[in-house]
Amino acid sequence: MNTLITTLKSLCGDANVLTHDDPGVDLSAWEQDWRKRVKGRALAVVRPGSTSEVAAVVKACAACGTAIVPQGGNTGLVVGGVPDDTGTQVVLSMTRMNAVRAIDPANLTITVEAGCVLQNLQAAADNAGFLFPLSLGAEGSCTIGGNLGTNAGGTQVVRYGNTRELCLGLEVVNAQGEVWNGLTGLRKDNTGYDLRNLMIGSEGTLGIITAATMKLYPQPAAQLTAWAAVPSMEAAVQLLGLAHQALGPGLTGFEVMGQFALSLVDKHYPQLRVPLFKETPWCVLLENSDSENEAHARAQFETLLETALEQGCVSDAVVAENLSQAHGLWHIRESITMAQAEEGLNIKHDISIPVSRIPAFVAETDALLAREIPGVRMVDFGHLGDGNLHYNVQAPEGADGQAFLRDWEERVNTLVFDQVMRHHGSISAEHGVGELKVDKLPLYKDPTALAMMRAVKQALDPQNLLNPGRVLG
Amino acid sequence: MNTLITTLKSLCGDANVLTHDDPGVDLSAWEQDWRKRVKGRALAVVRPGSTSEVAAVVKACAACGTAIVPQGGNTGLVVGGVPDDTGTQVVLSMTRMNAVRAIDPANLTITVEAGCVLQNLQAAADNAGFLFPLSLGAEGSCTIGGNLGTNAGGTQVVRYGNTRELCLGLEVVNAQGEVWNGLTGLRKDNTGYDLRNLMIGSEGTLGIITAATMKLYPQPAAQLTAWAAVPSMEAAVQLLGLAHQALGPGLTGFEVMGQFALSLVDKHYPQLRVPLFKETPWCVLLENSDSENEAHARAQFETLLETALEQGCVSDAVVAENLSQAHGLWHIRESITMAQAEEGLNIKHDISIPVSRIPAFVAETDALLAREIPGVRMVDFGHLGDGNLHYNVQAPEGADGQAFLRDWEERVNTLVFDQVMRHHGSISAEHGVGELKVDKLPLYKDPTALAMMRAVKQALDPQNLLNPGRVLG
Repeated sequence: MNTLITTLKSLCGDANVLTHDDPGVDLSAWEQDWRKRVKGRALAVVRPGSTSEVAAVVKACAACGTAIVPQGGNTGLVVGGVPDDTGTQVVLSMTRMNAVRAIDPANLTITVEAGCVLQNLQAAADNAGFLFPLSLGAEGSCTIGGNLGTNAGGTQVVRYGNTRELCLGLEVVNAQGEVWNGLTGLRKDNTGYDLRNLMIGSEGTLGIITAATMKLYPQPAAQLTAWAAVPSMEAAVQLLGLAHQALGPGLTGFEVMGQFALSLVDKHYPQLRVPLFKETPWCVLLENSDSENEAHARAQFETLLETALEQGCVSDAVVAENLSQAHGLWHIRESITMAQAEEGLNIKHDISIPVSRIPAFVAETDALLAREIPGVRMVDFGHLGDGNLHYNVQAPEGADGQAFLRDWEERVNTLVFDQVMRHHGSISAEHGVGELKVDKLPLYKDPTALAMMRAVKQALDPQNLLNPGRVLG
Repeated sequence: MNTLITTLKSLCGDANVLTHDDPGVDLSAWEQDWRKRVKGRALAVVRPGSTSEVAAVVKACAACGTAIVPQGGNTGLVVGGVPDDTGTQVVLSMTRMNAVRAIDPANLTITVEAGCVLQNLQAAADNAGFLFPLSLGAEGSCTIGGNLGTNAGGTQVVRYGNTRELCLGLEVVNAQGEVWNGLTGLRKDNTGYDLRNLMIGSEGTLGIITAATMKLYPQPAAQLTAWAAVPSMEAAVQLLGLAHQALGPGLTGFEVMGQFALSLVDKHYPQLRVPLFKETPWCVLLENSDSENEAHARAQFETLLETALEQGCVSDAVVAENLSQAHGLWHIRESITMAQAEEGLNIKHDISIPVSRIPAFVAETDALLAREIPGVRMVDFGHLGDGNLHYNVQAPEGADGQAFLRDWEERVNTLVFDQVMRHHGSISAEHGVGELKVDKLPLYKDPTALAMMRAVKQALDPQNLLNPGRVLG
């Protein structure tokens, strides 16, 4: 047996080091990415149970130059958490380190291990009487370590920020196998460089996050959801401004959905009863989280929507009467991804643009795509409150999806990303770079920034052991 | 003349390069730090007028190995923005680059040059109908570049965060004189390492911030201030929890002030009429920023204070009747620094501790100091909402201030900082490291973190040209 494997087994226990040589063991769950774009082959899957085990594993791998791919719930969308196909990389699965270490109510913080599933973290906060606001589709299986590694976004960013903004402190094992204990619950700490934010969003290429101290918030007394038909994207942006003004920090959700995206939900899931979409090019879902009570939240929403109707930026609107209706409206929003998959393969984008430029971006880019690909169908939706669009391109009706992707994906990406750059946006808003966009970065990232990124990587991981080939090629 | 000086004059214009050889020129304003602890001697003070001039200056200095000390309003409190006394360093004063480049109302952003005075930035936001919430004592002369370089805190952190949390994008000249254009107005951008936050708080040692895109917020419809007497620090922490729950994000200020601190204000500025302090060990100042109206804010405050009175964590309270009364209360809080200076020299600290541990920290540390220095007087006040205390130690009554500092400063610092570490706090919450605390960092910072900081500095500024000797010695 490989001596490294022997060492790893002595460090973490035989049962926590899995290899292809073990009879009856299937490593697919760790080797196959979520979107099934890539299947790698691991030298071993190691599942450490403590921070000191992680440190020892890194030291053992560093000693023999073996690359490490940190992995959480393996729900990433950019091929950043699975091994390559060489059979030489160790997958470091963090899921055994899933404890809630501490809750500090007076300090409004919770300290958890990296492998804690997001939904369990939400539940631990809830049980203590607090809100942990990070929320996203994969919350039942993604881990907070993965959320931090990729700086995940989700549905409440307009109020609470990305995962980055929810984190106060980290425990990290660096590429030398040393532990940095930065698990502070401090809101203010100006003693040197911001290593916390350097690690967050670095996709496991600069260090391995083993635990984190995250912010808690008071639970809102009431949460109300509204659904508004808007006559144009300009009107949606105008409505966003009114909502900021009227609801202030109560505005916790602002999602936009195009007519074609909603028509797919209506077509494939008619039981969801999509409201108002037939007569309008765009619908908006708004959420108001109130620290007082439901009556107050409802009065605020009604004032806002009346103003918006008067100003013409809303043509019709409904406010959910109860929690079940509210969940129903959110469920429609969240079903767009599945509905477009039912309709066939499509070219996905996760872009951000300054909110003020989104109307021009969409109008111009829709027109450019329609000229290039007659009959192309745009599945536009996203977190307009954050300037984040999932601007997806579906094949013309009846076209073969596979052929469409093969013939068009590269050209469509180039067209869309060039437009993103023209409007000072980002080609990856919330999903990260991973392996999927690593070739795009040199084309679209400021060259000075890229050079500084390379210098930082070289400084912190000179052997290029941590998740090589991701973020930086 | 020195050839570098000739080059700098050709780059920025003769009038914008000042040296000691110029007849009648006094460089004290750039060489003397705000608290008058250090007076350096500059080779030259250079005042570039554009980003490309900054880049050219850095290239010229790098070519001959001349160190650069970036400077904003020179209001820093830790000796981080003045030259050393060798006469070999160039002060790069950013104050000529003070333009507001753009305001984007729909995107809720403002883009300004680094030399823009904070008060002018606030005013530009206000004129456009928005709030820029960063606010601190030096706002009439500090610059946003300095605020970013030091990650300044201030009085509204409990709601809006530090300067770091208010910034979306930067333009930076790095140590090689290359410009990184990272001036995005994006709320989401996951295309690589977080260089923005790496630069923020790095005190000019990793790059020179030349411009920034900052967040704007809706202006609150009403702002109310209350003043509460609380029977103990435990009670103050309990009141903070109630305030978070009752006001949610409306809570924009939560300051605590000890009885002795307030008695100094009362003694030296009796006209300020400090309320409620005589019968209570601590007072708390609360601010509620409401997105509706004053009546709503007042009702919220009254409910909160009634609950707090019932629960016994407040013994008495007043709510300001109007804006002038509110300013009066804030003025008392802000006068503590001056009042303690009137009373005599003292040993200052800017520390943070998890909020939950502050009562134990204060009780223990007060007792330790009283045992060491009989008659010592504690000027305790600070941003309790952020866990940030200005925990200042005043000489016993009648003692000679100079002698007290000379005999006790080092021992008191060690005692306080050791206590801070015991309670998992930070020895510099909002002022930074500069030169003043550079020797303390190796004693109190996690060694792995410190090693990574050194690696990053070496990677980005291998010649050690940018503000050498600050942050890292």
